[in-house]
Amino acid sequence: MGPAATLDFYAKLIAATPATREQDHLRVLIDSNPGVPDRNLALAGGAPSPEAAPGPVLADMARGLERAGADLLVMACNTAHAFEADIRRAVAIPFVSIITETADAVRREHPTARRVGLLAAAGCLEAGLYQRALAERGAEPVVAEGALRERFMTLLYRVKLGEVGQGARDEMRAIAEALIDQGAEVMVAACTEVPLVIGQEDLPVPLIDSSAVLARRAVALALAAD
Amino acid sequence: MGPAATLDFYAKLIAATPATREQDHLRVLIDSNPGVPDRNLALAGGAPSPEAAPGPVLADMARGLERAGADLLVMACNTAHAFEADIRRAVAIPFVSIITETADAVRREHPTARRVGLLAAAGCLEAGLYQRALAERGAEPVVAEGALRERFMTLLYRVKLGEVGQGARDEMRAIAEALIDQGAEVMVAACTEVPLVIGQEDLPVPLIDSSAVLARRAVALALAAD
Repeated sequence: MGPAATLDFYAKLIAATPATREQDHLRVLIDSNPGVPDRNLALAGGAPSPEAAPGPVLADMARGLERAGADLLVMACNTAHAFEADIRRAVAIPFVSIITETADAVRREHPTARRVGLLAAAGCLEAGLYQRALAERGAEPVVAEGALRERFMTLLYRVKLGEVGQGARDEMRAIAEALIDQGAEVMVAACTEVPLVIGQEDLPVPLIDSSAVLARRAVALALAAD
Repeated sequence: MGPAATLDFYAKLIAATPATREQDHLRVLIDSNPGVPDRNLALAGGAPSPEAAPGPVLADMARGLERAGADLLVMACNTAHAFEADIRRAVAIPFVSIITETADAVRREHPTARRVGLLAAAGCLEAGLYQRALAERGAEPVVAEGALRERFMTLLYRVKLGEVGQGARDEMRAIAEALIDQGAEVMVAACTEVPLVIGQEDLPVPLIDSSAVLARRAVALALAAD
């Protein structure tokens, strides 16, 4: 969805690939389509008009990638996973969920953590994607509510327009710290724009980057299928 | 071809796009295929075996992108432009040549420059791509020969494997300086791996980045077609 988040995911995919020559890299087909209707608007109460529904657009993109020869699909946008069912219905190839993989990584890497903070967009939170995945794994989500959620969304749209400097970093850190103050023992960058502005060095608790988790998993699955 | 060069090109494409919201960005379809047979080997004398010929693979990729809806094609690899005819024959949509655009940019930005240095791979030089394009525009190419060309190729394969630190930067700079000593008044990063290790700040003469030139041109053409 966001081109910068797609670029960041692609960089992580390359970095996660063991290669001793260029030809060892994976073949990667990218459909970077900023024309997918705004996911957060679509999920913000009320049925979106048919032209503003992301599901059919995402399904078309998935079909296009399958037709182009993709063996597996990933989507470097957490919120858009609210429309995962549309994608799965559209194709026969596997779709690897960033939500499932990230929740698994939280559990595997921090088996005793109870309270998990989510740096996630409003639509992702409203769809309950991570809340369900974490609850199924015995963890409790800590999420931004009210004004704090609005602050995240204001920041997210700034980051999407390329604002990734110190101001954005400080603001993202402040939002993360508010969730840590509410008891989060582990934080999840549950929006692929989050790692564009903060990293592990910015937080006093472990940070799981959903984008990096998905990249590593996609590489492992692609290499296993070879 | 090289994933890191493709990533760099994609970053330049995003940076070159005027956007006041995510939805203003271009739709970009990327086929990053490190399985394209080695272009330099294929161009190094002797007919390559049919399995090792890049042309048909590039033509297939072009057809795939056209079928997926692309309105114009670009290829972020200079050397692979030796097989441009295979691509053009395969599709009905326009193919924008990095060679033509970069030679045009050299002429436009440095109308009085006579001698133009080429930081280019052996296959690109052997195919004479830039030499012809520059000669047509009244400029004279300055290229690495013999041992200097071999040094470039050794470095190129290191960069393709992710070596982009100070050592690679110093070596690329030394090669560029050898061409400047031979009279180059303007340098061209005529290989998309070159800007991964050096930039304008590394050279005492102007540097034209073929990857950035192509990105800006692709954005301009895509927006003009809208």
